[in-house]
Amino acid sequence: MATARGPGTQLRADAARNRQEIIKAARELYGRRGLDAPLDEIARLARVGNATLYRHFPSRCALAAAVFADTLCRVIEAASLALNDPDPWHAFAAHVRFLAQLQATDRGLADLLITEVTGAPELEQLRSRALEGFTRIAGRARTSGALRADFTPEDLVLLLMANAGLVDRTADAAPEAWQRFIDLALDGLRTLAGTTPTATRPPPDRGALRQAMINRGHFLGYG
Amino acid sequence: MATARGPGTQLRADAARNRQEIIKAARELYGRRGLDAPLDEIARLARVGNATLYRHFPSRCALAAAVFADTLCRVIEAASLALNDPDPWHAFAAHVRFLAQLQATDRGLADLLITEVTGAPELEQLRSRALEGFTRIAGRARTSGALRADFTPEDLVLLLMANAGLVDRTADAAPEAWQRFIDLALDGLRTLAGTTPTATRPPPDRGALRQAMINRGHFLGYG
Repeated sequence: MATARGPGTQLRADAARNRQEIIKAARELYGRRGLDAPLDEIARLARVGNATLYRHFPSRCALAAAVFADTLCRVIEAASLALNDPDPWHAFAAHVRFLAQLQATDRGLADLLITEVTGAPELEQLRSRALEGFTRIAGRARTSGALRADFTPEDLVLLLMANAGLVDRTADAAPEAWQRFIDLALDGLRTLAGTTPTATRPPPDRGALRQAMINRGHFLGYG
Repeated sequence: MATARGPGTQLRADAARNRQEIIKAARELYGRRGLDAPLDEIARLARVGNATLYRHFPSRCALAAAVFADTLCRVIEAASLALNDPDPWHAFAAHVRFLAQLQATDRGLADLLITEVTGAPELEQLRSRALEGFTRIAGRARTSGALRADFTPEDLVLLLMANAGLVDRTADAAPEAWQRFIDLALDGLRTLAGTTPTATRPPPDRGALRQAMINRGHFLGYG
């Protein structure tokens, strides 16, 4: 029987260390290159073989869950805190800015917020809770009269999709471009904004937008 | 000496037809898949060999110029017409919508409007004229008091970059999502919009944004 410091313990310690190295490497590569960072590059950066990576994370979805669950928890927590802000518009604007900044600092997260990772239900549950938090923040801002009455959570999805695209195109050369963009966008969401005559078009159908998120997941090789 | 209907004429007619088929195939594939559509797929769709494609268009840039010069001329023309609109805000909003719609209907153009194709100076000249036209439209709307005073042409670039990203992510499933997004964005550009306390941040540096456009070109394999 192996003692507490026997070879079995050593193996388990190696496995745990490998797992941590893989998650660390994936976090770095996803952050820099986006959700479609190749698994073999992640393995190389983690200094493990492809087979070891596969043993720990049998699917891209499993790896994404290990990497991003923490961040989604932070988003949920931030949404809870925002509900304590006495100024409903400030809470809303700050939370939108917080999400956009997360997108700007992490290209993987930029897409994860608006991509369905159908193969990782635990991530989907977290993302769903994060959206619920945002919906409460938006509801408060709307009730206060500061946020335009026709705003829906789908509008946030549009905004985050657009911001992800902007970050894709500016991250290297104009990494703060998203801030100006979000400022302009927030001005368009305030009740003070005059709605243009054609701004009576409803936001896109929720099902269609969800399908777009699923398609993005397929495109990126997630589910 | 070959007569007017001799073999030389036949060869030239074949070459001209091949050239047209390549342009047609490229227009279709760029439109559906974006500027990074592979050249060999374009050749296959045009039913010509890779060598023939290469003989007609020795670089991706040359092919892009042949495909998109027309469309950029239409953009320049539309900008000229917009200057005749008696309502400066309407002219501005309609032109932004026109550009965003072009992006939505043509994925290649979506990026071309905000990508420097350094290897095709004729395209760059056209894009530059199109931006000048837009700048005049925006100047008129600003002078009239309808467009926010701090608006710059760089803000249009941001908006088109964001819209390109949104179109990337919604074209299949929610192809009209861009309309709602542009409506919200236009509301943020009107003077009626209350500027948020933090919206005093200047737009990104012109040079940095230009660099982002150049980088996007490199990323897509253009120059």
